[in-house]
Amino acid sequence: MTHSINTSETDVLIIGAGPAGLMAACWLARTGVPFRIVDKRSAKIFAGQADGLQSRTLEVFQSFGFGDRAEKAANHFEDMCFWSPNEKGDIIRKGRNPDSVQGISRFTECVIHQGNIEQWITDSITKWSQGQGKVERATLPLKMSVDESLINDTSAYPVSVLVKKLNEDDEAVPEQYGAKVTNGLYRQFDGDQDKFYSDLQDGLLDDTHELIKCKYVVGSDGAHSWVRKQLGIDMIGDTTDFVWGVLDMVPLTDFPDIRNRCAIHSKDAGSIMVIPRERDLVRLYIQLHEVPRLEDTTKSEFGGGDAAVSAKGSTTGRVDRSKITTEFIVKQAQEIFKPYTFDITDLDWFTGYQIGQRVSPQFQAYNRIFIAGDACHTHSPKAGQGMNVSMMDTYNLGWKLAHVCKGLAKPEILETYEAERIQIARDLIAFDHKLSRMFSGRPMVPNSEGSSDGVDMAEFQAAFKKGAEFASGTIVDYAPSILEVKEPTPNVEVQYYTKYATKVGVGRRLDSSLIQSQAEGRPWHLADRIPSDGRWRVLNFCGDIKNPELAAANKELSCFLLSGDGFAQYTPVNARTDSVVEVLTIHATPRYECEGTDFPQGLWPKDSHGRNDYWKIYAGIGTSFHKGPCDIYEFFGINTNKGCYIILRPDGYVSHIVPVGAEGIKEIQQFFARFMLPQTQNVLQKDANTPDTDRFFKPVLAV
Amino acid sequence: MTHSINTSETDVLIIGAGPAGLMAACWLARTGVPFRIVDKRSAKIFAGQADGLQSRTLEVFQSFGFGDRAEKAANHFEDMCFWSPNEKGDIIRKGRNPDSVQGISRFTECVIHQGNIEQWITDSITKWSQGQGKVERATLPLKMSVDESLINDTSAYPVSVLVKKLNEDDEAVPEQYGAKVTNGLYRQFDGDQDKFYSDLQDGLLDDTHELIKCKYVVGSDGAHSWVRKQLGIDMIGDTTDFVWGVLDMVPLTDFPDIRNRCAIHSKDAGSIMVIPRERDLVRLYIQLHEVPRLEDTTKSEFGGGDAAVSAKGSTTGRVDRSKITTEFIVKQAQEIFKPYTFDITDLDWFTGYQIGQRVSPQFQAYNRIFIAGDACHTHSPKAGQGMNVSMMDTYNLGWKLAHVCKGLAKPEILETYEAERIQIARDLIAFDHKLSRMFSGRPMVPNSEGSSDGVDMAEFQAAFKKGAEFASGTIVDYAPSILEVKEPTPNVEVQYYTKYATKVGVGRRLDSSLIQSQAEGRPWHLADRIPSDGRWRVLNFCGDIKNPELAAANKELSCFLLSGDGFAQYTPVNARTDSVVEVLTIHATPRYECEGTDFPQGLWPKDSHGRNDYWKIYAGIGTSFHKGPCDIYEFFGINTNKGCYIILRPDGYVSHIVPVGAEGIKEIQQFFARFMLPQTQNVLQKDANTPDTDRFFKPVLAV
Repeated sequence: MTHSINTSETDVLIIGAGPAGLMAACWLARTGVPFRIVDKRSAKIFAGQADGLQSRTLEVFQSFGFGDRAEKAANHFEDMCFWSPNEKGDIIRKGRNPDSVQGISRFTECVIHQGNIEQWITDSITKWSQGQGKVERATLPLKMSVDESLINDTSAYPVSVLVKKLNEDDEAVPEQYGAKVTNGLYRQFDGDQDKFYSDLQDGLLDDTHELIKCKYVVGSDGAHSWVRKQLGIDMIGDTTDFVWGVLDMVPLTDFPDIRNRCAIHSKDAGSIMVIPRERDLVRLYIQLHEVPRLEDTTKSEFGGGDAAVSAKGSTTGRVDRSKITTEFIVKQAQEIFKPYTFDITDLDWFTGYQIGQRVSPQFQAYNRIFIAGDACHTHSPKAGQGMNVSMMDTYNLGWKLAHVCKGLAKPEILETYEAERIQIARDLIAFDHKLSRMFSGRPMVPNSEGSSDGVDMAEFQAAFKKGAEFASGTIVDYAPSILEVKEPTPNVEVQYYTKYATKVGVGRRLDSSLIQSQAEGRPWHLADRIPSDGRWRVLNFCGDIKNPELAAANKELSCFLLSGDGFAQYTPVNARTDSVVEVLTIHATPRYECEGTDFPQGLWPKDSHGRNDYWKIYAGIGTSFHKGPCDIYEFFGINTNKGCYIILRPDGYVSHIVPVGAEGIKEIQQFFARFMLPQTQNVLQKDANTPDTDRFFKPVLAV
Repeated sequence: MTHSINTSETDVLIIGAGPAGLMAACWLARTGVPFRIVDKRSAKIFAGQADGLQSRTLEVFQSFGFGDRAEKAANHFEDMCFWSPNEKGDIIRKGRNPDSVQGISRFTECVIHQGNIEQWITDSITKWSQGQGKVERATLPLKMSVDESLINDTSAYPVSVLVKKLNEDDEAVPEQYGAKVTNGLYRQFDGDQDKFYSDLQDGLLDDTHELIKCKYVVGSDGAHSWVRKQLGIDMIGDTTDFVWGVLDMVPLTDFPDIRNRCAIHSKDAGSIMVIPRERDLVRLYIQLHEVPRLEDTTKSEFGGGDAAVSAKGSTTGRVDRSKITTEFIVKQAQEIFKPYTFDITDLDWFTGYQIGQRVSPQFQAYNRIFIAGDACHTHSPKAGQGMNVSMMDTYNLGWKLAHVCKGLAKPEILETYEAERIQIARDLIAFDHKLSRMFSGRPMVPNSEGSSDGVDMAEFQAAFKKGAEFASGTIVDYAPSILEVKEPTPNVEVQYYTKYATKVGVGRRLDSSLIQSQAEGRPWHLADRIPSDGRWRVLNFCGDIKNPELAAANKELSCFLLSGDGFAQYTPVNARTDSVVEVLTIHATPRYECEGTDFPQGLWPKDSHGRNDYWKIYAGIGTSFHKGPCDIYEFFGINTNKGCYIILRPDGYVSHIVPVGAEGIKEIQQFFARFMLPQTQNVLQKDANTPDTDRFFKPVLAV
């Protein structure tokens, strides 16, 4: 007997509440878009799993207001140490690199348990949604359908997802192998859905079922993505024979670099990556040289995390999981660490995995359903990339969904998601492919001239150094598109520059340097004045305002901003003029030689209450009393007698760089006209008693 | 009819949960001492009130783990601007100073609403007490008595305080004048106690009464301190005729420095202090030149905050409070700001006060009852001193109470509280006396040669600059005592130095500079490795360990630490060896030229689980990849071929500086023998399942 089903609507349904799903939710909470986020598991993740945070990820955390939490709680690396065998076969320290590339970001790589990271993003969602946005756990998606007749109607809800609320105590808890210590060897959870599907076939719907109609779906549901399967997309890639164990524990050892990140190649016993963590914990990735295998070659049973791939390409038989005990892993580690002693205490987590690199050929369907994170790409975990790239997927997607859901921009901007992120995924796979094979390989034997066997350790160290730049996430470079005005570049190592700002790559994230508030003198990182709040920015590098031409350009820009031709057309009626596109002026005149009042009013607009906005004008060159000198003109390669306008996307990537004055203003107009929608019919309700209601996106709240 | 009364015991009862009381509770929570904290009011404080945070206060916040919250949420100043009249009588900018003295601390002065500050400390109390320590509001103290026969028995509870739990809705809410905007003009709350006292006289005790027996009482109950009154102590000091209004609001003005801290002297209309605050708020302290007064001269009715003093010394009649409206205050401000326009919106809070400076002649009784904060000293609020000095009072007291309550030290150390803090209070009153009179005075008229009337503006600006050093709280200098081995110095401006560390003043807080972890390479501020956790520190500046003499000194120190003569005698049995006195080694050898294993084991002890402590050894000279060079030997004036040991109190003040090796070790032994108590009978219960039970003070938790 059928039941009348609960039905609801939401703009965006996010399926999977790992880091990628949470990052999508964070954007939607921040920008005030209705969304729901569901996860089939009842509990948050266990210990272990991913733990590396790369520079760009930390910049993004900071842009949402919680970068300081990572800075405070995580373990930070200084050195990356390389160990390999000497003539006797004992491991010795062969070199040290800076772990993070110097000068590439104000944040450096660090590690902390994934549970903390999920908590920070969840807290941010709670804050920005005023407690409304909550992960709905133990909620299993059962069926997804798309009404193709509605996909071109931006106000319609063409995607329907049927979900079932599970019993939290038994139905939604994955079973673990080994009860005493949490580990990553738990059984994949999909099989348990069979019963619910057969109920569905029989038309058995009850109060635990709900039909969610939505404009968009984000599938951030892991390597075995249910959403991806619904779309019939198969991952492409392969798996190697190398098997690795992972231990999170407190080591008992005389190895002197145990609190440094290390890559250790032993002569014959395999390799170890050392990742010191928060508190006294250390993570080891240990090559399992003599891993016991079964004869059946059909399928590996590894599951969970970004390391989880089925061993489809394997030819040597699947791993006998029952033999991968901590004792087995520790024994292999002891061999590799020789001549140093090694034992463990306070075991926190362990797992095993086989390296594989696979990527999805498609990241979306209908421009309505998007997959992200492990659902699109899986690879080895040792460079700390999986969780980072996954969060950056949805960081790319979230603001675009917000712009389209809020009716600010054309749906075409969503097409850039797949184009931009599939390239990153492919670059990542190539990077991981190269590095993980070098790391898993046997080292070239010292003094064996002429031998071409084995990995050259100097080459490995150089590759690692080069890889650190890629791994930081800061050199991501988006190709020309509706959002990027540039010529194509041959590869990620070649930046697209303009003559206006010779050190700012178009398509890349804008790096940050100190500027000083004109009104307050306080030194700020530019990045902290352009948080992820959904707004576009035009950075008015107006140069030295004592130059009459540049002063005239400022007046022209001010007139443009105060006119109907300005961003008012893209800004809802009654909203603050800086609600959708914010203009920040960064001048090159000494701060004590000018006053805020020397800048035309359009550059520091009054709000509807008559209050001045004192946070729009900055000195780009100067010396702060406590933080020393700053020169952002030099940092960005901008001529103080020319200046320029930099157009920045809401995610901080550079869209376009143009000259100041009439010509640049025209280019700005043309740029936004490509995808923005007029808001002249969109009237925001005024509420005189609440000072902030004339802000369109939520203002930054006090902490 | 009498009732059998509820009776309980606690080590420390804190009366008054403002910043001073909370800081005391924070120490006790951090060190695991049983305490209770009560406050007669049901609600937390209103808007407004104190808001300045000085450098030393921020250092202390950081030492408890929440300095970053202030850094993030508060408004920070860059400039201090001075405005005074030109020949025409219009105010003009006459100068700018750095608001905080450059190089005096890694933290600079900032402002934020007192409610935030109380919240941070409360959160810290919750964290360190695992949720056990809570402010008991609407709890009124009625009677205090001391059993003098017990005061020399450290295990006894000689002080009894009878408290009554009030009805939160009506009995514990102070009445406000003016319902629409919260303000500081509320009626003093003491009068409402009359009824409860008369009930008490009649012997009417019921379930709302409780008799709390305690070892120690901290009276942090404000300018009208009930505890102080019970002790029969009267404040000494005077009051001026200057009356000031305070406004917290969003200004509408063309005054260019409205977002900078400013001191404005107008020609005839009085003075203004501008304090830009968090969000768009600005606080103004406005001299009320033409304040309406009543004829009755007996008593002013101002109350609340550190500004609240009765106008006992006033001779010109008490202020007619009903006339102090926002309109009245704004009108005076408009006169002072001329020729600039001035109006307000978003009024948040306002109050009025008369400047007075008064100090208590006694800060304790019986070495059992201590008063702190406004209960001991009141003065004008404009230098942001009241709340800061108040918190520093209990920051001085709290760890001493903890040491005595835990049986680690003799009660004599408590005697240093009054000695150390009464001098600070007197210095403060002198500082405030000078500055507030200069600020309230009429400016010397320009071009009126020979005139001695009025305040010289250049002199005022110089005094302000000098005052900033005092106001920072970083030059507090404690006199010789059982805790301070030094010769007396003539005044606070003369530091007591030793030849071993020529830039470290004994009796002062140890400043901080970067050091690099030997094991991890990570650059840390020294201060962040010596948090306020109740422990003493011996900083082993062992110099360059390639020098054989210095290497030998390290061996000697290691032997001492591992022997029964070391700090083991002051450490409970089974507790970690670093539980009461922690030794940190900061060497002067290049980090890459030595290994942790080059340092004898006593300097990086193993715990009972065999785990190495990797956080005891640091390189004091080096260059970190991302934070640049550091040289703490140069910073502290320590010779790398001599070294020294610095003994630091749990509150970070320098007790003693001695040479390395046998001589210094002997001096260390003699120093601690003055006041520490043997712990050989104090056996800590072991619990093998909980790795941290062998820590005596609570370990630093993950965030």
